[in-house]
Amino acid sequence: MASGKSHGKVYLVGAGPGDPKLLTLKALEVLRKADVVIYDRLINKKILKFASRAEKIYVGKSPNKHEFTQEEINQLMIKFALEGKIVVRLKGGDPFLFGRGGEEAEALASNNIAFEVVPGVTSALAAPAYAGIPLTHRKYSSSVAIVTGTQASNAKRINWRKIAEAMDTIVILMGLKSMNEIIKELMNGGLNENTPVAVIEWGTLKRQRTIIGKLANIIEEVKNKEFKPPSIIVIGEVAELGRRLSWFKEPMI
Amino acid sequence: MASGKSHGKVYLVGAGPGDPKLLTLKALEVLRKADVVIYDRLINKKILKFASRAEKIYVGKSPNKHEFTQEEINQLMIKFALEGKIVVRLKGGDPFLFGRGGEEAEALASNNIAFEVVPGVTSALAAPAYAGIPLTHRKYSSSVAIVTGTQASNAKRINWRKIAEAMDTIVILMGLKSMNEIIKELMNGGLNENTPVAVIEWGTLKRQRTIIGKLANIIEEVKNKEFKPPSIIVIGEVAELGRRLSWFKEPMI
Repeated sequence: MASGKSHGKVYLVGAGPGDPKLLTLKALEVLRKADVVIYDRLINKKILKFASRAEKIYVGKSPNKHEFTQEEINQLMIKFALEGKIVVRLKGGDPFLFGRGGEEAEALASNNIAFEVVPGVTSALAAPAYAGIPLTHRKYSSSVAIVTGTQASNAKRINWRKIAEAMDTIVILMGLKSMNEIIKELMNGGLNENTPVAVIEWGTLKRQRTIIGKLANIIEEVKNKEFKPPSIIVIGEVAELGRRLSWFKEPMI
Repeated sequence: MASGKSHGKVYLVGAGPGDPKLLTLKALEVLRKADVVIYDRLINKKILKFASRAEKIYVGKSPNKHEFTQEEINQLMIKFALEGKIVVRLKGGDPFLFGRGGEEAEALASNNIAFEVVPGVTSALAAPAYAGIPLTHRKYSSSVAIVTGTQASNAKRINWRKIAEAMDTIVILMGLKSMNEIIKELMNGGLNENTPVAVIEWGTLKRQRTIIGKLANIIEEVKNKEFKPPSIIVIGEVAELGRRLSWFKEPMI
């Protein structure tokens, strides 16, 4: 893997779910020593400030601007590492749970670039936690599915009906836009229309908002309250616990 | 929820997967101001040191000693909070993914004790990441199951066969002892004997060891190499990626 003395190193770093305080000590350490930070959308500005000496390159989506392809992002990391730079590739949540960190590691490995992975707190756990929702509970859930609601056309297909049959708690990332179809499929898989659902918008940030409802009415609620991405969806009995266990102060909705 | 001025507060805190550098800034902050830390097994001593001014109470299992029941742990937290203390309830990984954090939050809420949840990096993600295994990947996995291999008799049952049918990647915590039966059930659910499996012992710590094999031979490998708990099991195509993407230096096995 590693290499000559003149080579740099790439850190694939999870920035956590949003609240800058959920950054890890290791992430802070590598941000402070970084020469270059290549970062995505939804990365908190307070976290970027820790990289005080680094050149910062935004590679997320933005209207009217050149959009970086995955291949271009890979080439950027490789180029800077070959120049001997310390590169932080900063991603929301955890770098190896969705977000294509695995593909980036493959590009680095096949170009003999030294790299490390710095796991982060995933929003799949943290957003529910800030809404008072434990993903597991002796009485209600012994198994958790974490699934994306937005798939590239070339990605491995998701079988929502079977997930409905198999899993106690289902957490869906990036699922707001396809919520209609997903809920339909989950109900075809046997989920009752009274199954509790929580939707958490901007989880762990001051503007976090939560709706707790049922499969039968959640789509209407989400529409009424104008929830937008980024939102996390939690389906299963545990969602109901948020009514009693919520502790994080949310703006009124 | 909250209460009179004289009341304290309880923080349900995730200590992360083992590597002290994977602690969050928020966890560090509350440990530093804690009056009391109530901690479990497998909490790294380096992390406890951050709580320099706190009384530290071990409530994990240990032979020959009184073992705390969940009810006694709840009562301890409540007692100290009512005395006006800042209490950190420190748990391995994330407090709301297994480990009964939800039940502790329920006890606090029904006694009107103010509390906060501090999510942590879960070993379900971090141990695979340190072994070079991304849990998702466009080609191989769009869904992740996180399941416990050790269940209390009163806990909600797990249907391994259906999980095998539904999910691309299966991560099993505390599963080493029941690995035989679990693998049998997963194969009854349709998993091929050539499905890749990784077992990671002491993930994220210097003594981390990893085996990558197949469902057909992993039990023998685990026995030969004398793997012990704590170990994380990862089942699915992504496990194979660890062969190419491993970056963390492990002792020879």
